[in-house]
Amino acid sequence: MSNQDVRIGIVTVSDRASRGEYEDLGGPAIREWLEKALTTPWQAVARVVPDEQDQVEAALRALCDEEGCCLVVTTGGTGPAPRDITPEATEAVCEKILDGFGEQMRAVSLKFVPTAILSRQIAGIRGRSLLINLPGKPSAIADCLDAVFPAVPYCIDLIEGPYLETDEAVIKAFRPKHARKPQA
Amino acid sequence: MSNQDVRIGIVTVSDRASRGEYEDLGGPAIREWLEKALTTPWQAVARVVPDEQDQVEAALRALCDEEGCCLVVTTGGTGPAPRDITPEATEAVCEKILDGFGEQMRAVSLKFVPTAILSRQIAGIRGRSLLINLPGKPSAIADCLDAVFPAVPYCIDLIEGPYLETDEAVIKAFRPKHARKPQA
Amino acid sequence: MSNQDVRIGIVTVSDRASRGEYEDLGGPAIREWLEKALTTPWQAVARVVPDEQDQVEAALRALCDEEGCCLVVTTGGTGPAPRDITPEATEAVCEKILDGFGEQMRAVSLKFVPTAILSRQIAGIRGRSLLINLPGKPSAIADCLDAVFPAVPYCIDLIEGPYLETDEAVIKAFRPKHARKPQA
Repeated sequence: MSNQDVRIGIVTVSDRASRGEYEDLGGPAIREWLEKALTTPWQAVARVVPDEQDQVEAALRALCDEEGCCLVVTTGGTGPAPRDITPEATEAVCEKILDGFGEQMRAVSLKFVPTAILSRQIAGIRGRSLLINLPGKPSAIADCLDAVFPAVPYCIDLIEGPYLETDEAVIKAFRPKHARKPQA
Repeated sequence: MSNQDVRIGIVTVSDRASRGEYEDLGGPAIREWLEKALTTPWQAVARVVPDEQDQVEAALRALCDEEGCCLVVTTGGTGPAPRDITPEATEAVCEKILDGFGEQMRAVSLKFVPTAILSRQIAGIRGRSLLINLPGKPSAIADCLDAVFPAVPYCIDLIEGPYLETDEAVIKAFRPKHARKPQA
Repeated sequence: MSNQDVRIGIVTVSDRASRGEYEDLGGPAIREWLEKALTTPWQAVARVVPDEQDQVEAALRALCDEEGCCLVVTTGGTGPAPRDITPEATEAVCEKILDGFGEQMRAVSLKFVPTAILSRQIAGIRGRSLLINLPGKPSAIADCLDAVFPAVPYCIDLIEGPYLETDEAVIKAFRPKHARKPQA
């Protein structure tokens, strides 16, 4: 796959943002973080959906299967409240769940707030796409991306996606030696 | 919901305690810890049940749905042995599982014993109730409650339960600013 | 059960190793680690199987149910790639999953590489057998066994398996006092 075709889905899950009652802050925070971190050219595909499991599932499936996103990141809907269904929707569309992402995001968030244990964020694989749930709060988004993104490019290699490169001053991605491409 | 109505379920899961062959130490240890920690008036609803999944499930359902407990805490039955079925019963009655509780309880218990990884404790949500599995051993109960309770009052807020307050000298509960009630 | 009968299954999950295109390094690394760690006499039962879920399941079932292994350890097939199905096969044959093993192995591996969060290693119980997934890389195998093995002998006690003893200079197994046998 040519790196010109790199597409990343950004899904804001929020009843209020989807009705326009609330400015979407999570989606733009993810986009800004990725713009700083990635040196590989990429294109954002953004969606804002309400906290309805079927609509979140449909958005995730479309971004993976139709839009060809190698990475799909969500914000919002991961807490214990009745309307929080982002992890359920993510799990329903994934073939594999990667428990290490949720563990690591909670471990990092716990350094800031003890309520980090209430977060049900997961990550998983659907075909050639990696899906990651992030929190709703913009500052927590950056903490979580800082924590897990070093493993993201190699994960996408393993599912046969594009070779993503990062600005090492922002985030240092890790690949085992045999998986590294020679520098241009 | 008026805080006069705060009810907390305490379930001891033990074949021997349920037959009266063994003094229940876990249930009273939980009660004692909560009496020290909570300044909000509350009422304990205690049950002792054998390690039978259907009986544990029935007790959990009754405490949530009939007794109106906003919090239900169990002790015992979370290990790898054939009769240990408390997590299975808890998962069966919950709509959402909060993996961060088990992770955090194991991480804290690991500081004391390497066998903490054998614990299968979970937490989850059923309607307006938070369910938490604790270990059977009284000293480990306090370690686990110390570790996770700071997140419990805000979790109960999020599922529309009563506003619980703690004695900060014992346990400092955390709520984001927007969720804090003005002091009386 | 007499300790003369202690059998431990070692399963290498690898398409290439199963076709003889690649030397199995993971299986021998596990065996070497266990030979150093265990003072109880034991017998290895080794299998090399391709990354096919039904074949991995069949091997695990045979080692537990026919070969009478109290412990079955796998190497390989735990990543996010499409052919990685060892955790799925393990979960399918287990009655109980012990999340603490995967958490602890990832936490330890994270000290070495940020891609540790991509590992989906699990552990679980089938009847009187403990099953543990290890990574494919020999150096990571030792790191993971160092991290979780202190809890393995007591876990096997709890599922009514043989009383395993370790060389404390290599690995210090932990049992609560009431579970310790008097020294010979």
